[in-house]
Amino acid sequence: MRRAIYPGSFDPITNGHVDVICRASRLFDELIVAVASNEQKKTSLFSFSERVDLIEQVCRDARNVVVMHFDGLLVDFARQREASAILRGLRAVSDFEFEFQMALMNRKMEPGIETVFLMPREEYTYLSSSLIKEIARLGGPVEAFVPSCVAKALEAKLRAK
Amino acid sequence: MRRAIYPGSFDPITNGHVDVICRASRLFDELIVAVASNEQKKTSLFSFSERVDLIEQVCRDARNVVVMHFDGLLVDFARQREASAILRGLRAVSDFEFEFQMALMNRKMEPGIETVFLMPREEYTYLSSSLIKEIARLGGPVEAFVPSCVAKALEAKLRAK
Amino acid sequence: MRRAIYPGSFDPITNGHVDVICRASRLFDELIVAVASNEQKKTSLFSFSERVDLIEQVCRDARNVVVMHFDGLLVDFARQREASAILRGLRAVSDFEFEFQMALMNRKMEPGIETVFLMPREEYTYLSSSLIKEIARLGGPVEAFVPSCVAKALEAKLRAK
Amino acid sequence: MRRAIYPGSFDPITNGHVDVICRASRLFDELIVAVASNEQKKTSLFSFSERVDLIEQVCRDARNVVVMHFDGLLVDFARQREASAILRGLRAVSDFEFEFQMALMNRKMEPGIETVFLMPREEYTYLSSSLIKEIARLGGPVEAFVPSCVAKALEAKLRAK
Amino acid sequence: MRRAIYPGSFDPITNGHVDVICRASRLFDELIVAVASNEQKKTSLFSFSERVDLIEQVCRDARNVVVMHFDGLLVDFARQREASAILRGLRAVSDFEFEFQMALMNRKMEPGIETVFLMPREEYTYLSSSLIKEIARLGGPVEAFVPSCVAKALEAKLRAK
Amino acid sequence: MRRAIYPGSFDPITNGHVDVICRASRLFDELIVAVASNEQKKTSLFSFSERVDLIEQVCRDARNVVVMHFDGLLVDFARQREASAILRGLRAVSDFEFEFQMALMNRKMEPGIETVFLMPREEYTYLSSSLIKEIARLGGPVEAFVPSCVAKALEAKLRAK
Repeated sequence: MRRAIYPGSFDPITNGHVDVICRASRLFDELIVAVASNEQKKTSLFSFSERVDLIEQVCRDARNVVVMHFDGLLVDFARQREASAILRGLRAVSDFEFEFQMALMNRKMEPGIETVFLMPREEYTYLSSSLIKEIARLGGPVEAFVPSCVAKALEAKLRAK
Repeated sequence: MRRAIYPGSFDPITNGHVDVICRASRLFDELIVAVASNEQKKTSLFSFSERVDLIEQVCRDARNVVVMHFDGLLVDFARQREASAILRGLRAVSDFEFEFQMALMNRKMEPGIETVFLMPREEYTYLSSSLIKEIARLGGPVEAFVPSCVAKALEAKLRAK
Repeated sequence: MRRAIYPGSFDPITNGHVDVICRASRLFDELIVAVASNEQKKTSLFSFSERVDLIEQVCRDARNVVVMHFDGLLVDFARQREASAILRGLRAVSDFEFEFQMALMNRKMEPGIETVFLMPREEYTYLSSSLIKEIARLGGPVEAFVPSCVAKALEAKLRAK
Repeated sequence: MRRAIYPGSFDPITNGHVDVICRASRLFDELIVAVASNEQKKTSLFSFSERVDLIEQVCRDARNVVVMHFDGLLVDFARQREASAILRGLRAVSDFEFEFQMALMNRKMEPGIETVFLMPREEYTYLSSSLIKEIARLGGPVEAFVPSCVAKALEAKLRAK
Repeated sequence: MRRAIYPGSFDPITNGHVDVICRASRLFDELIVAVASNEQKKTSLFSFSERVDLIEQVCRDARNVVVMHFDGLLVDFARQREASAILRGLRAVSDFEFEFQMALMNRKMEPGIETVFLMPREEYTYLSSSLIKEIARLGGPVEAFVPSCVAKALEAKLRAK
Repeated sequence: MRRAIYPGSFDPITNGHVDVICRASRLFDELIVAVASNEQKKTSLFSFSERVDLIEQVCRDARNVVVMHFDGLLVDFARQREASAILRGLRAVSDFEFEFQMALMNRKMEPGIETVFLMPREEYTYLSSSLIKEIARLGGPVEAFVPSCVAKALEAKLRAK
């Protein structure tokens, strides 16, 4: 069985993430969406459990997709889960540089796990969680960028502030 | 009448900004320099009114240039002002990526407003407000990089600290 | 009156070109689609008059769009036509570099004419005339990438070979 | 069974190609190395059958790797072979742009086949068949860049000229 | 005598830095590794004297390498030291943009000092001090990325926290 | 004594090349401008001896600059001349990729010779010999882009055709 891991902070999950998850779930027997809980630098808008909950709602119908959290080194987590691949979506040149740096570093630490890059739909190339949060904060429409349950959660979260 | 909007934080305005404003003012009937007041993440060196004031001093002689502030979504502001274009200066590859992401996002929210890119003079491609502030803080010369009123304001501001 | 020039070889015109023409025709009073006849290096698939003819069919309903040819320096042509801007569509990083090189060269020769960059729809970012000709040669479908009259012309041209 | 296709002209196969083939053969049940025979523009140094023969020698021990040729559209070939993925190695920014353009075009023609990107070893990022041929022509050493049977074939081919 | 300056924050020095220092020490008569003490924005993990101390341990055997600190403008420091070159290692496209911006700015302030770029070993292209600190914080292995005295210092520093 | 080699086809030498030569001649004891005579792919506009002659006219006053030709592998030539560095000018991102590929390949073949990158003046970043030849062919002005003896040679050469 081939298992892949799709890591991220998913604060919150966007249509771009969903697109990559769909594509990857057809290429691997099992796909673990791995939510990073260790974010010391930046504070997240959604709590860890809120982020996991939103992904689970969105991926409910995908049979071979599992949502998990991890809080140490990604390669350690991948090794424990016996994954053969780490999955990443590539969007733009700046992504490309950073992703390659991470992938080479991970390969150095764990040569047996391959980093695999997929390309999201071109209309999702401009999506990022931080841009969407910025738009939501300014009262802009986010329905076109995130699943509907995420749009509602964003609205509720920002109204509460 | 065709109206364009040139948005930014302008903290402070540089010779690169001035160059883009001059070029754009010849292409459009009216150019609105739109100063963003909503900067939650980073604190600005100059207050909002100081930044507006410096732009107004610099653009005094440009007849079809207006300085305004905005504090919500840029596309909402552009729509209210009946602008047909958002203007951006392109400097480098990293700019390019970020600018395209913003432009595609804005187009999704408001398809009727076009983002137009201009190229500043090549000798201004290395200018950024943050680099200039860093140089000023370290006591370096900034007269070659900003209008003279801005150089004076930088000096006064940093001496006061 | 503000006039812009959109230069290219248009061998043949693609949906990406059409998208840029539509966007530009709303920003300028007149848009000249300028077909380059001087291509010493590479031989074109369509003759010069075929290329002009296809553009004219496609742009028939655009009132302020004119199709012309030019065979010398672009800046000389722009000066003769009293254009205030040269228009270019930006697609990708490699485009960006080349386009900037051309734009800076043109500015050096004629400082009075500005190069203006527009961004085509993201689903057209992958289109290029040469890729489309390659697909057509291999018998692939091109209807999604070019206007229908161009698809027919491609088929007829390649069948005749 | 999941089958992937690794297309190219392989004129000749390099250590970078071999590295990508090894990595991919662990991720898929079957990997088809698909040698393009249709190269109208550029003439190849090695004939089609020589290129296939060299790949077969190099991949002899890889059980799930098959070498084939194709001469039409890549997506048609992938569909006939019931492949779920097209495999590409990513080396640098210029690669990235071109590869994305191809991948988006292929997706438009055949949405059911995913393009998957792998990263070769960093010491192979500078390898290209054309650079290696250039070095061989100038009498330089190529043993570090290609499998030994390819180094011999290059030497023999160039001596014969 | 030709003297070059290699500036940075070196928090801490990595194998990539060491590689650049070795290469540069063969090209110049004297190489000053210049440790920046003025970091107002980001707090460093290692104190200024710890960073200097680690570099001195690593570069002990390099006869023409000197470690110094500076806390003003880099070009002022270079002028005082009568350096003819500022040395930088280039790793990736994003580096490239930022480095050019800095180099052009420095040239504007001090035309007599040239910025010289070297290329580290390709296996060090993915190294950055911040990535290494992140790995160390998560308990990952850093011995492959930094000199052994730095690995020990990282471990001691993080255990103390 | 430290010797550097600045290789190229110089067909013809431009102001950008001259700028790099000036900068490099201050950093090294001797600079060899090495004109490649082996250009099988593309035919040059100027003959090999014409290209050498133009460089010699331009560099007449630079005491430590020597013009030579080479027709094999660059690293072999550099080794024979006991050079410690190969010099390259970096202009743009696409340059950057290609130059790194070449530099890594050369380092693999000859680890003892370092590739050193300099940055030309920003106003020369758009210059390339091929673009200048194209402009000259179309009757455009080239005096701003090349030394005056080169401008005359271009005019004479193209009139003769």
